[in-house]
Amino acid sequence: MTDIQGSSPSRRALIGWTGAGLALGAAVAGGAVAAANAGNDVDPAAAEAGGAVEFHGAHQAGVATPVQDRLHFAAFDVKTDDRAEFVQMLKDWTAAARRMTAGQAIGEGAYGGLAEAPPDDTGEALGLKPSRLTLTIGFGPSLFDKFGLRDKRPEALVDLPKFPGDNLDRSRTGGDLCVQACADDPQVAVHAIRNLARIGFGKVAIRWSQLGFGKTSSTTPDAQTPRNLFGFKDGTRNIAGTEEDRLKKFVWVGDGDGPEWMTGGSYLVARRIRMNVETWDRTSLQEQEDVFGRDKREGAPVGRAKEHDEPFLKAMKPDAHVRLAHPDSNDGITILRRGYSFTDGTDGLGRLDAGLFFLAYQRDVRKGFIPLQRRLAAHDALNEYIQHVGSALFAIPPGVRDSGDWWGRTLLSEEA
Amino acid sequence: MTDIQGSSPSRRALIGWTGAGLALGAAVAGGAVAAANAGNDVDPAAAEAGGAVEFHGAHQAGVATPVQDRLHFAAFDVKTDDRAEFVQMLKDWTAAARRMTAGQAIGEGAYGGLAEAPPDDTGEALGLKPSRLTLTIGFGPSLFDKFGLRDKRPEALVDLPKFPGDNLDRSRTGGDLCVQACADDPQVAVHAIRNLARIGFGKVAIRWSQLGFGKTSSTTPDAQTPRNLFGFKDGTRNIAGTEEDRLKKFVWVGDGDGPEWMTGGSYLVARRIRMNVETWDRTSLQEQEDVFGRDKREGAPVGRAKEHDEPFLKAMKPDAHVRLAHPDSNDGITILRRGYSFTDGTDGLGRLDAGLFFLAYQRDVRKGFIPLQRRLAAHDALNEYIQHVGSALFAIPPGVRDSGDWWGRTLLSEEA
Ligand code: HEM
Ligand code: HEM
Repeated sequence: MTDIQGSSPSRRALIGWTGAGLALGAAVAGGAVAAANAGNDVDPAAAEAGGAVEFHGAHQAGVATPVQDRLHFAAFDVKTDDRAEFVQMLKDWTAAARRMTAGQAIGEGAYGGLAEAPPDDTGEALGLKPSRLTLTIGFGPSLFDKFGLRDKRPEALVDLPKFPGDNLDRSRTGGDLCVQACADDPQVAVHAIRNLARIGFGKVAIRWSQLGFGKTSSTTPDAQTPRNLFGFKDGTRNIAGTEEDRLKKFVWVGDGDGPEWMTGGSYLVARRIRMNVETWDRTSLQEQEDVFGRDKREGAPVGRAKEHDEPFLKAMKPDAHVRLAHPDSNDGITILRRGYSFTDGTDGLGRLDAGLFFLAYQRDVRKGFIPLQRRLAAHDALNEYIQHVGSALFAIPPGVRDSGDWWGRTLLSEEA
Repeated sequence: MTDIQGSSPSRRALIGWTGAGLALGAAVAGGAVAAANAGNDVDPAAAEAGGAVEFHGAHQAGVATPVQDRLHFAAFDVKTDDRAEFVQMLKDWTAAARRMTAGQAIGEGAYGGLAEAPPDDTGEALGLKPSRLTLTIGFGPSLFDKFGLRDKRPEALVDLPKFPGDNLDRSRTGGDLCVQACADDPQVAVHAIRNLARIGFGKVAIRWSQLGFGKTSSTTPDAQTPRNLFGFKDGTRNIAGTEEDRLKKFVWVGDGDGPEWMTGGSYLVARRIRMNVETWDRTSLQEQEDVFGRDKREGAPVGRAKEHDEPFLKAMKPDAHVRLAHPDSNDGITILRRGYSFTDGTDGLGRLDAGLFFLAYQRDVRKGFIPLQRRLAAHDALNEYIQHVGSALFAIPPGVRDSGDWWGRTLLSEEA
């Protein structure tokens, strides 16, 4: 439940006064984000109060950050040929993202400047808390065909292969850029994407976007594991935001991985996966549990008692999802999952257009999603109930270091 | 923010034990809903703890109930010709609604009965709080062509006229039945609609559905007024859930209004209204404020200082939305607004498919929405920025009185 009347600083408070207000805003926001370090850990008290997540750091927030409740994800196409214009937009985006994640309105706000001019901020997040908003930018393969960037394209940023069973809708696939907005209040996430789209007007255009109403993964080891639309706990075995070692090993691009501009970054795979809930709902409990290799009530692996017990893979059916996806079946492959459930109305056949907007971060997709999905697409019992209908891959650059830095600098600055 | 780890009873606790558990569940739920009376008032403490809203009462909950944060609305078409089968489904729906609104799983739950059978509950709301879920049923005009109900159709349940500017999408219009699910947690609302659709399988099918991510109206006088996607406070002048007199006068069908089976009910108009946010965002602050007749910051009527000051209509432009919609311009017409903002991805032109899912309750649409919308459709300055793309009207029957009663009894029981 969104508590918009608690004690933490509201956007209104932050922008209410012009001169002193900004200083106060910065101070208060500084306090609220103090608990959030570059690893994007969040003080639970600050989170509870709808606090802010630090925007700056070695890595972008929104990857290892404890998963927020809601998502608005947008893929953009670039419309300008002018590199300088594109770079300026990225700088403007960065400034706006810095303010929005701190719970502040953009520029002079929704009623700042001249009455004769459109306001700098669209205003629908005024009075709402920062809500742990994170904004994470990514660069798609097609961006590197532009602006003379061909040589900078990371080898790891491959074109995803077609997997068996894929039924991709072109209008939900690809994109030159992406922004992942996560927040505990959906209005805050929607506001952020809309305002970035607005700043980008004429330079970029939204290609597709996806709202996610419920997180399906947790990166917080102690939290209650959320349930997906098949009613199972999802995210039990995931990389926790606090596991620095595993993040380093499996998620963050390391020093020698190359290219240099990606060091501290990651790779994001987004897949829109339809879940045929109507068919699933007519399936027996036994079949459901066989499909995952876990029980529905507790989430324990087959033959084990507790959710967090080590899975005993041989006790599962050979085609069980967990057995096939587990690192032990895949030479140790481990990804960080950060997906959200979606429901987008009803399809032409009266079925809910519902499913999982799967988001996975990894150090190298060639050693992460691709081999894993090859195996799942070929064998997973779950395939009877799901279908991949959208797909995209993005290089997630490293974090914005400080107030002088901007999204994409390591790729696009003159010195880069 | 969804607090799934607070102190109030979780669904898991409520269904965790089979025998004693149900008794405990009932007792705990009873405690949680004790604060909510038939007028659907909610104890703020219970609400904050994600509590339950009482399902039974003279009126259905979800009308005068303080507006919850999220919405899942579904319109259904009837597929069966068998009246007895339809009645049985309504009874089954009622039993399920009674349990879900109390925060309990349906039937034997998601892992109750036999392993060989599909579970009674789809499970994705296990562990979540009741989240003030309300489920409100409505009957569309087309239902009365079926089951020999022609004579029972209320005169007030007219076919809505076509208004100037309407651009209705048939696939988002009409429906024999509707269920409005409101909750502070979207997963709880989505779970409810999905499980009702499942129970109705073969008897009804979803015609269209709409997710709303942010409430735009408040029926709680002291709460902070939410902002709509044009950045303005919305719902300032609305009927409060505590104003018994105005509810009686403008919302609830009275004794002599007829037909008898509707006494204690209401009429719901649903309109899917696209808001052209891209155009709006390029409009000056002055123009925006002129369009509504209120200022953006405070929400005060033109020429007044405070949001809740009495509007001085003559100070507004003649085509200002508030001036045209105000009761003083409409012989006192007053409706209860309960709409939600939506964002359903992007249209073919890269624009956000965003807007207001307008929901209005009234005692008689012929003296409520219809004359009001005629005026607005003809003159409202807002029309430059919005378009009505979906529409439906439903008769909302009175409340389910007790555990022996069911949705639609006053219309469909043998004695009715
Ligand atoms: C709609 C589609 C999917 C659903 C409903 C789903 C659901 C689940 C569930 C319930 C679990 C067990 C709990 C847990 O450890 O999180 C799980 C585990 C896992 N899934 Fe999926 N999943 C889906 C798609 C995928 C895809 C596309 C991939 C990767 C290509 C994937 C990779 C994994 C991995 C790596 C695990 C952890 C295995 C382990 O370490 O035990 N899943 N999934
Ligand atoms: C996207 C479409 C719409 C938007 C953005 C919108 C927005 C607003 C706003 C910002 C206010 C002022 C604050 C308040 O008192 O709530 C308002 C008032 C009102 N609106 Fe709308 N509205 C829309 C459509 C409609 C429609 C279709 C109707 C009815 C046919 C309607 C009826 C009213 C009424 C009755 C008031 C209160 C007037 C008063 O008593 O002062 N609105 N609306």
